[in-house]
Amino acid sequence: MVCGIVGLGLMGGSFGLACKGYFDKIIGIDHNIQHQEDALKLGLVDEIGTFEDLKQADVIVLAIPIRGIINALNHLSKLNLKKDSLIIDFGSTKESIVNECPKNIRKNLVASHPMAGTEYSGPQAAIADLYYNKVMVVCNIEDSGEEQVKRAFDIYNYLKMQIKIMDAKEHDRHAAFISHMPHIVSFSIANSVLKQEDKDHIVTLAAGGFRDMSRLAKSNPHMWKDIFKENKKNLLDSIEAFKSELKKAKDMIENEKWEELEEWMKTGNQLHKIM
Amino acid sequence: MVCGIVGLGLMGGSFGLACKGYFDKIIGIDHNIQHQEDALKLGLVDEIGTFEDLKQADVIVLAIPIRGIINALNHLSKLNLKKDSLIIDFGSTKESIVNECPKNIRKNLVASHPMAGTEYSGPQAAIADLYYNKVMVVCNIEDSGEEQVKRAFDIYNYLKMQIKIMDAKEHDRHAAFISHMPHIVSFSIANSVLKQEDKDHIVTLAAGGFRDMSRLAKSNPHMWKDIFKENKKNLLDSIEAFKSELKKAKDMIENEKWEELEEWMKTGNQLHKIM
Repeated sequence: MVCGIVGLGLMGGSFGLACKGYFDKIIGIDHNIQHQEDALKLGLVDEIGTFEDLKQADVIVLAIPIRGIINALNHLSKLNLKKDSLIIDFGSTKESIVNECPKNIRKNLVASHPMAGTEYSGPQAAIADLYYNKVMVVCNIEDSGEEQVKRAFDIYNYLKMQIKIMDAKEHDRHAAFISHMPHIVSFSIANSVLKQEDKDHIVTLAAGGFRDMSRLAKSNPHMWKDIFKENKKNLLDSIEAFKSELKKAKDMIENEKWEELEEWMKTGNQLHKIM
Repeated sequence: MVCGIVGLGLMGGSFGLACKGYFDKIIGIDHNIQHQEDALKLGLVDEIGTFEDLKQADVIVLAIPIRGIINALNHLSKLNLKKDSLIIDFGSTKESIVNECPKNIRKNLVASHPMAGTEYSGPQAAIADLYYNKVMVVCNIEDSGEEQVKRAFDIYNYLKMQIKIMDAKEHDRHAAFISHMPHIVSFSIANSVLKQEDKDHIVTLAAGGFRDMSRLAKSNPHMWKDIFKENKKNLLDSIEAFKSELKKAKDMIENEKWEELEEWMKTGNQLHKIM
């Protein structure tokens, strides 16, 4: 079986590494020449190709930003793809992708979002176990072809992923809470410390807790801007929910309602019982 | 040399474990009988004692909450301690401790704050390498005795810690940014997710980023309430600084100033260059 991976960064590159044993040949496509060279050198793909080469692919993975995915789907809809080919996209939001996918290839598409990643990006960041034991959300499978869903699930099982089926709308709302808002919060922590006169002194005290809370602020601004843009409404809702809890805490501290604050924290402790 | 550890939780227990080779005998003191039993069983200390036993101690470690430390110092000031004995406290804020330490034992005290910890507490949470390679902040050493500072540094070097000397006031302000505010933020994230109707569904999507951002919300509410109480003003200042960055981000998202948002994130990326 031939696989084409569009986008050879952290997500696409790691997919290539992990799926070496699954495919007979993996073709990599990336407009960035440095990425092409790195991906070949690091053995993430077997060869570098172009969109034309995707006509021979059984599986096409789109591991690029959301707008890029939608452009690629439009492009693919005009190519003579193999009839039963499977197209997987790894977009971080799903509603616009399932809505804007051209009708003639909608059955080919299995819209997926791997809940995996690191704060690093590019082919150099690719790791073979990125997907291992992680959740793969698959959206609106009722609009995908049966063969394609079967093939996609087979690949996700091969990667030892846990498959969760979800509505695209619901996914986007959840992703705002679980990922997009926490990114904004982490960047806000980083920027608030950087604004302090004694920032260098402050960070000498950084221990594990602060490192965790500021890790997401290492993320790629260009990529995240696009994700925030796609999920604006849900993101704002989740920031609002967060802000309202923060305000509660601040008011309790200001008014020295220490017992109430303790109760509020005890409630927070419950999260890890459902996680 | 004899060491007495008051408080056999994560901090005191880990200190006992790590300093086995440094002291001839370690006496543990804790009002919680379960903690006493656990500490003995886990080998964190050699024996369990009372405050009276601290008269024979060369080194006394106060690994209890801040108000407890101040009470203990008052108690110790009335005991017949060894003349050159060293008292170390591990309080999370330092100004009230150095200010309220009784004069007759001020030279004995070396006010310290290990920038180490986990989200767990109690003797069962103790680990031998908790302090290894971590920062130990030591405050207002000009008011400590020379012998005592020498001894304390010798112990911290034995633990392979990095010693940072700092003014207590400055420490408390820095600790608010690096630790106390991030705890409030993490609890706010946890509570905002728990408030959602579909919270169970939401957390099925949790990946590494969310786990990091919500880890501090596992912390002990009782203990943290006391820390927040002691550092109220600095904590409110740091929350204010954070809120102002969050507001900036929210406004940019609302008004679709995506390029500005990207710049703001790029600034946040800088944090890890100074860390």
